[in-house]
Amino acid sequence: MRFKAEIKVMPLKELLDPQGKTVSKNLKNLNITQVEDVRIGKNIEMTFEANDETQANEKVEAACKKLLSNMVMESYEYRLETLS
Amino acid sequence: MRFKAEIKVMPLKELLDPQGKTVSKNLKNLNITQVEDVRIGKNIEMTFEANDETQANEKVEAACKKLLSNMVMESYEYRLETLS
Repeated sequence: MRFKAEIKVMPLKELLDPQGKTVSKNLKNLNITQVEDVRIGKNIEMTFEANDETQANEKVEAACKKLLSNMVMESYEYRLETLS
Repeated sequence: MRFKAEIKVMPLKELLDPQGKTVSKNLKNLNITQVEDVRIGKNIEMTFEANDETQANEKVEAACKKLLSNMVMESYEYRLETLS
């Protein structure tokens, strides 16, 4: 079966996000005002094969933990979609 | 009114995504096999104030076009949520 996972990796809420802060400031310079907060993370789309949904979930979890996110500073969540 | 926009900025489908290709290769090295494709983009969460939904949409569109995405290489989409 083919699956598509849409993975969101975001900086933990407790941590400062310097990239987000910079964007926030620059939006103001561009006259986009009243912006309270900006946080920037990654969006990863992964297409892959797996035997079933259980294995698909395992694969995504493994990919997130081993490579895609840094658990010290980031959290992840994902949505799994069956393609066929 | 307070709004939260969740903005996804992804490399255009027609273009190579070298970062995604590298991740794809490294997943294999970590024994996560049968991965077909990986594409990596940005996920941006923006909290802001606007008078109404129309103005909120305008703000997000302006932010995407002027700062958050490079229209030559990336596409964006977003979801708007009313916070209060």
